[in-house]
Amino acid sequence: MNIFSSKFTGRPELVTELPGSVTTPEGFEAAGVAAGIKKSLKPDLGLLLSKKPCVSAAVYTLNAAAAAPVKVCREETETGALQGVVVNSGSANACTGEQGLADARRMVRAAADACGLHAERMAVASTGVIGELLPMDRLEAGINEAAAEISGHGGSDFAVAIQTTDSFAKEGAVKVELSSGTVTIGACAKGAGMIAPDMATMLAFITTDAGVPAGLLQDMLMTAVTRSFNAVSVDGDMSTNDCVFVFANAASGVTLEAGSDDTELFTTALAAVCQGLALKIVADGEGATKVIELKISGAAAPEEAARVARAVADSPLVKTAFYGSDANWGRILASAGAALAGEPVFLPDVYYEGICVAAGGEAAHGAEAGTGLDEIMAQPEISVSLNLNRGEHACTIYFSDLSHEYVTLNAEYTT
Amino acid sequence: MNIFSSKFTGRPELVTELPGSVTTPEGFEAAGVAAGIKKSLKPDLGLLLSKKPCVSAAVYTLNAAAAAPVKVCREETETGALQGVVVNSGSANACTGEQGLADARRMVRAAADACGLHAERMAVASTGVIGELLPMDRLEAGINEAAAEISGHGGSDFAVAIQTTDSFAKEGAVKVELSSGTVTIGACAKGAGMIAPDMATMLAFITTDAGVPAGLLQDMLMTAVTRSFNAVSVDGDMSTNDCVFVFANAASGVTLEAGSDDTELFTTALAAVCQGLALKIVADGEGATKVIELKISGAAAPEEAARVARAVADSPLVKTAFYGSDANWGRILASAGAALAGEPVFLPDVYYEGICVAAGGEAAHGAEAGTGLDEIMAQPEISVSLNLNRGEHACTIYFSDLSHEYVTLNAEYTT
Repeated sequence: MNIFSSKFTGRPELVTELPGSVTTPEGFEAAGVAAGIKKSLKPDLGLLLSKKPCVSAAVYTLNAAAAAPVKVCREETETGALQGVVVNSGSANACTGEQGLADARRMVRAAADACGLHAERMAVASTGVIGELLPMDRLEAGINEAAAEISGHGGSDFAVAIQTTDSFAKEGAVKVELSSGTVTIGACAKGAGMIAPDMATMLAFITTDAGVPAGLLQDMLMTAVTRSFNAVSVDGDMSTNDCVFVFANAASGVTLEAGSDDTELFTTALAAVCQGLALKIVADGEGATKVIELKISGAAAPEEAARVARAVADSPLVKTAFYGSDANWGRILASAGAALAGEPVFLPDVYYEGICVAAGGEAAHGAEAGTGLDEIMAQPEISVSLNLNRGEHACTIYFSDLSHEYVTLNAEYTT
Repeated sequence: MNIFSSKFTGRPELVTELPGSVTTPEGFEAAGVAAGIKKSLKPDLGLLLSKKPCVSAAVYTLNAAAAAPVKVCREETETGALQGVVVNSGSANACTGEQGLADARRMVRAAADACGLHAERMAVASTGVIGELLPMDRLEAGINEAAAEISGHGGSDFAVAIQTTDSFAKEGAVKVELSSGTVTIGACAKGAGMIAPDMATMLAFITTDAGVPAGLLQDMLMTAVTRSFNAVSVDGDMSTNDCVFVFANAASGVTLEAGSDDTELFTTALAAVCQGLALKIVADGEGATKVIELKISGAAAPEEAARVARAVADSPLVKTAFYGSDANWGRILASAGAALAGEPVFLPDVYYEGICVAAGGEAAHGAEAGTGLDEIMAQPEISVSLNLNRGEHACTIYFSDLSHEYVTLNAEYTT
């Protein structure tokens, strides 16, 4: 995967992409095996481990129906000192009650035992069908198999094992040239179906050989997630299973300190890696044929910018218009106007790749002619700007279109 | 149309359905003609008139991008004393700036002149493509043609002329046996594509020969709309053009008074007529194959019930599951949980037509066996109950599924 392949992702200076995965940074091992949880018998169990103790950070879903593994991670593991994570696909272990919690704990213990770790240093994540119990015997056998196979070359196997409806694995690595030395970041993510991002399970795992104090790592992760996974409209609303983990094992010998230029550069690199993964998730949106960047400006408040962005990005009428290559700015204004219900004045401007199609709430002069719009709408990545002309606040969101294939996938697949 | 054909619509006692339309109540005339606004040359201009002065009431969209006709009605007509309305389909006259406002005023004047009314007694409504100017010459010629044709038998022509993507006209009439005499209500509506109800233009026109004081009529209409059009999830978010009008011309000689049993019965009848129309709109949702009734109970607050109802009803994953006849309660819990983000405890129950599939947030015992669920999921109307187990508040919402046909319609049609 090319992390910076989207035209929406800038590669920061001093950051270089490497062919790689979560096992590219020194000291990380991983494995992915088929444990028999998926009926397809495809790989469905991944194990990721740092050989040495880590500082870690995590962001978990806020969904009130949070899955058992999320609850166990949040309440029973040391989020700041995790050293490994066990992940299964095929079954989400969500809406599974006390038995689900017991099963998530059993996964943690089995993985920790197999890797020789304390249980509170092993995280757990699941993704797949909601409401079914895990096949614990097969799953435990899979954990032991993964622990036996685990290696410094297993990153891509891990990335494949965590997939559900993904049509391609999402992983990569970068090196970052800090003033105090070079560090490496590896990452992979799982997710597709961003049409309703609050529903699409998104898992991401990031490794680095940089040394980072725990509080600083959590701050960096929040910054990176805000600019990336949350900018594909996940926001506060997330699926039952969403989580993002980062592990920093200091194996490079380079240690970051709060407030330094190196820390700023590392945070930028981390955010760029996350943004690259997030855009891959959007591009792999179930049935997606296009990725749209929507830049909201001129909002009266940050909350208003986010609300309008989400309303437009989630509108099935807007999404189907992009699928149909129809530069239908009227649907964009209508969904934005609905998000601003009750506001007396609304005179926005709309641009497609810099071409003004609406100004002050009505068709821009000459827009009917649609110079260049057909070419723009045929592209796989389209940038749209919506200036609300109400204030000074802005935000950017990325979303996919809504296609026949989306309906087919979700009418036939039980998540 | 049979107003009470849905299993979700109860026919109130003393209310009897009649074959009929907006011209069934005494003293109303209507017409529908093809003015050449639609490229298809189908009927696209309707005129509805009471021969004698009326009391009237209206509910307009709250969309910040409200269309020109909505602004003109709201600000320049006498909402409580309207006597007629001119409606065009094919072009929404939304996002059309000052020229759009001038055109809406010109429609009002032309219709008022043709009918011999003061302009402030003539309402105007438009539906169709956003962002294009109306072809005023053809439109004015159409208004004159409609005024020439208008008659007491034109209700169905009017109902056809206001359609856009509707696959059938939605109209009907009832008689209501009040203690003080019998009155008649006629109605028609336009709308389809309830997948994102805040986007789907919905117009409704109700006539009655009852006499009703203006303030009372507005209260009755709000009650009826809350129980009907807003229960298909329209709520505060509406399209650029949504509106509902009611005209009461007292031609029956029966007059209602605030607080009387007759007024209560009439309000119930009015709400039932509106509910019947609203369910027809859902059933005619673009590409819809099923109508789902979702009853939320056990919410901690009325706002919470509405928020959860909307999140579930608008979830593409929930909608595609119904299209696929998959009793996927996990997607219902996941979307409800997202709407309750941050709440620590969420242990809901889910029922499909009274069959418990989830209890306390996990699969109900024996639910896997799915006794009867296949039969239920194959029905065109499915009732689902979601008890949040958090409090005492409830609400009901109606929505349609999401099909391939929806995507085709909206990728190819410019609204």
